[in-house]
Amino acid sequence: MPFTNTRKVRIEWGDCDPAGIIFYPRYFEIFDASTAALFERALGLTKFEQLRRFDFAGYPLARTRAKFMRPTRFGDDVTVDSAITFGRSSFEVEHRLTLDGAICVECAETRVWVVRDLATGGIRPQPVPEAVRDKFGA
Amino acid sequence: MPFTNTRKVRIEWGDCDPAGIIFYPRYFEIFDASTAALFERALGLTKFEQLRRFDFAGYPLARTRAKFMRPTRFGDDVTVDSAITFGRSSFEVEHRLTLDGAICVECAETRVWVVRDLATGGIRPQPVPEAVRDKFGA
Amino acid sequence: MPFTNTRKVRIEWGDCDPAGIIFYPRYFEIFDASTAALFERALGLTKFEQLRRFDFAGYPLARTRAKFMRPTRFGDDVTVDSAITFGRSSFEVEHRLTLDGAICVECAETRVWVVRDLATGGIRPQPVPEAVRDKFGA
Amino acid sequence: MPFTNTRKVRIEWGDCDPAGIIFYPRYFEIFDASTAALFERALGLTKFEQLRRFDFAGYPLARTRAKFMRPTRFGDDVTVDSAITFGRSSFEVEHRLTLDGAICVECAETRVWVVRDLATGGIRPQPVPEAVRDKFGA
Repeated sequence: MPFTNTRKVRIEWGDCDPAGIIFYPRYFEIFDASTAALFERALGLTKFEQLRRFDFAGYPLARTRAKFMRPTRFGDDVTVDSAITFGRSSFEVEHRLTLDGAICVECAETRVWVVRDLATGGIRPQPVPEAVRDKFGA
Repeated sequence: MPFTNTRKVRIEWGDCDPAGIIFYPRYFEIFDASTAALFERALGLTKFEQLRRFDFAGYPLARTRAKFMRPTRFGDDVTVDSAITFGRSSFEVEHRLTLDGAICVECAETRVWVVRDLATGGIRPQPVPEAVRDKFGA
Repeated sequence: MPFTNTRKVRIEWGDCDPAGIIFYPRYFEIFDASTAALFERALGLTKFEQLRRFDFAGYPLARTRAKFMRPTRFGDDVTVDSAITFGRSSFEVEHRLTLDGAICVECAETRVWVVRDLATGGIRPQPVPEAVRDKFGA
Repeated sequence: MPFTNTRKVRIEWGDCDPAGIIFYPRYFEIFDASTAALFERALGLTKFEQLRRFDFAGYPLARTRAKFMRPTRFGDDVTVDSAITFGRSSFEVEHRLTLDGAICVECAETRVWVVRDLATGGIRPQPVPEAVRDKFGA
């Protein structure tokens, strides 16, 4: 069973556009923070602490796909349920954003665990450490 | 004594810049939401509900000034204390953003209560309604 | 052949995260503006003017999917090529974001032409007007 | 005479709020990029290249104050004029944002030239290098 996390998010005035509904890139800000919250819950560390503890450079996004079913607007308190499943050096996170139980957005993201590549100055994929996977029961 | 509100805000990875600290325009997003929260607490209505209940067009910013004393970074849970004092058709909100009791940012904003101006299609200042001021004990 | 538009975008310091690369929700801000630019080029009207000329409520996103191949960072001047193909009341926009000719991001979005629904106060899909499709040569 | 720079910025749909006008924190994103553009024009280097060339950690904001006179909205092509004056380890940038010649926003920011403090892991002010000041004719 995938490891999951649930959080509440308030949609703010400044998240919304002239149509009065959320400007959709804000959803991706919410999902990015939801993935960080999932890791924080599993590891008991904030992302800042994670980067110090594990010698890695983050888990940038490789792919994302989202489906927008109902708009949300400022004043809405939405719920984000996130579930993670691990590959070897990548993982998938599925987010469901609901308002009063009604599904508003579904998003599936693929992320890659990366480390600094000292040879190139860039980043390269690396298997997710056992110590991390264990915390997720993966 | 001015009406006040206090809220907690998590600084997220996506709020921060390549220096690893918060990108300062994000503070203004936080302060805008803090002013909305202050009104929500006083009126018992979200901003969406306020706009429906009171026949007005919002409280846009006329001036703001901010002083940045200490940086914050992702993973920080900061506290925002906001206090409001009313003029006739304008009001002042002072925000203090602290981390573990240490002051990080001070901000003072002046906002104006506006209504739609049907003659011009624009907006114009109008005295803050008594019904609103009463809720703030002003 | 689909109607296309090309624009240049500077990636800014404030678009980037503590890893020093663009925070991916910023790409969706860029793509949203790129779709607006595509319509502006075809119709000869800004989005503000479009909403006045055609009696509609915008073209909200129904789906998006994106693939991130190479990161970009502040100081990069990227190119966004956007191509549109029309359905009946929906349309697809494909964005390719490149840096010095190298593909960085591919994104495909599905949007719906909507009008205000006076009965419900919400929005509902409506066929894209002929006058609009004609301008795209669709 | 202070060194100046002028740039054009398009206000986008996603920069605006449910009142249909720009959400004011977006102005600070514009001003931050305008300060970077000022340095880029003087030094002939992007901010990314500046950080590599000069051994420093950026020029974070110490104070800002802004006055909002007229709103702008999506589709507006605004002009930002920025002028810099140097102190010893700090500098002031004044931004004027206009639309068709009419002043919309005035902003004055104080920034500090900082370097990494290896002793504390934090940052500390340092005099702006002569090589930088010279390029500004300061």
